[in-house]
Amino acid sequence: MNPTLQTQLHHRSIRSFKDEAVSDEMLAQIIAAAHQAPTSMNAQEISLVVVRDAERRARIAELTGGMNYIAQAPVFIAIIIDFNKTDLALRNTGKTQLIHESMEGFGVGAVDAGIVLGTMIAAAESLGLGIVPIGGIRRDPQGIVDLLALPPLTFAVVGLCIGHIAIDAPVKPRLNISTFRHDERYDASSYSAAIAAYDATLMQHWQNIGRSDGTPWSTSLAPFQSVYYPAVRPVAAMQGLLNDK
Amino acid sequence: MNPTLQTQLHHRSIRSFKDEAVSDEMLAQIIAAAHQAPTSMNAQEISLVVVRDAERRARIAELTGGMNYIAQAPVFIAIIIDFNKTDLALRNTGKTQLIHESMEGFGVGAVDAGIVLGTMIAAAESLGLGIVPIGGIRRDPQGIVDLLALPPLTFAVVGLCIGHIAIDAPVKPRLNISTFRHDERYDASSYSAAIAAYDATLMQHWQNIGRSDGTPWSTSLAPFQSVYYPAVRPVAAMQGLLNDK
Repeated sequence: MNPTLQTQLHHRSIRSFKDEAVSDEMLAQIIAAAHQAPTSMNAQEISLVVVRDAERRARIAELTGGMNYIAQAPVFIAIIIDFNKTDLALRNTGKTQLIHESMEGFGVGAVDAGIVLGTMIAAAESLGLGIVPIGGIRRDPQGIVDLLALPPLTFAVVGLCIGHIAIDAPVKPRLNISTFRHDERYDASSYSAAIAAYDATLMQHWQNIGRSDGTPWSTSLAPFQSVYYPAVRPVAAMQGLLNDK
Repeated sequence: MNPTLQTQLHHRSIRSFKDEAVSDEMLAQIIAAAHQAPTSMNAQEISLVVVRDAERRARIAELTGGMNYIAQAPVFIAIIIDFNKTDLALRNTGKTQLIHESMEGFGVGAVDAGIVLGTMIAAAESLGLGIVPIGGIRRDPQGIVDLLALPPLTFAVVGLCIGHIAIDAPVKPRLNISTFRHDERYDASSYSAAIAAYDATLMQHWQNIGRSDGTPWSTSLAPFQSVYYPAVRPVAAMQGLLNDK
């Protein structure tokens, strides 16, 4: 198996980082890889804001509600849906952009943000660095808009911590692959049994690594009972995105 | 530079594939890498539908409005936002899922779909295969729902063609990195000059590769003047997603 696949199959999120900078060269390589990732229609409607300043990382940790590894990891990267860039290009040709007001636009931006994130994960892990993706930057999106000086038509949809690994983490088991890979047609007939088995597997995993606060997977989904980051929609709308098309 | 980064920096989308199967082993490796990718809160709310049947790929090409490389590439993978999986788990614990009705939910699903897509791109390209992402499966989302038998709470947000490369493509230039990487704060002061320079660079690129139909980048964004896949929102709503929270 080649080194890329080996690294990918060994993915685990890291939440304990050394007090050691990520070199400018490594960071530039990770960002160069992301810069070359594909975007829908080559629109390149993604931007990154790299935050290395310690006080600003501490502020981001606060805005997420206490993800303290953001303050600890030397690099935080906010991934921005950036329809400001495409709007500027269109306006220069005398045209008016509409896509940013639609679900289609937000969806394209979010997918392309995910591609950039997945690309940076592969790049950073290939360099032996640890990473953890941060959805928590959607907890207080207005706070992030203010901190990163995000103009209209932009929105920080997800983040990434990168650093040298202090305490490594084990690879977390996944639901059986039968719940992930469908051939030709979607088929959920294996789901119930796979979920029950995974609830047990995950409890065994927590026990193996000495995590007494671990819960079965089904229980861990409790936040999905509510819209746990309810400010996403109104703040995106204030940024000029998502006006219901 | 390590092999993962080398591959990533050489990314280009391929639209010409050999009439040669992707081996079961390679396909399994690509999907295993994606299966291990991180998801928000470990929700694993993504599923894949692998389409290898030639008639079904031809039908998907039709639904996209004529992306014939989907019929040509031996493997097409639809990436599905799958809140059916998490809903089932929650219902088994006596709870009611709400997240799928929200922007937050659709955004999380789309980002995680993008992470899976980025992960599969790195995996497939590390194996020497060619890929092209397919946003066109959002052109006729109801047709895709019917073809893939997608139940409520699921939505095919993006696709991927994979195959052995017949005609290789050059690496396409990108906008200057100053429009992609911001440090500490978003700063668009370089955008106008970078866009003008890129319009010229891209025209030179089209000329270099003998594409007489190439346009400047700013002109190529013309589809952003409208919601070019307007069925996304109503079909997602019919699937039970996005009820305006």
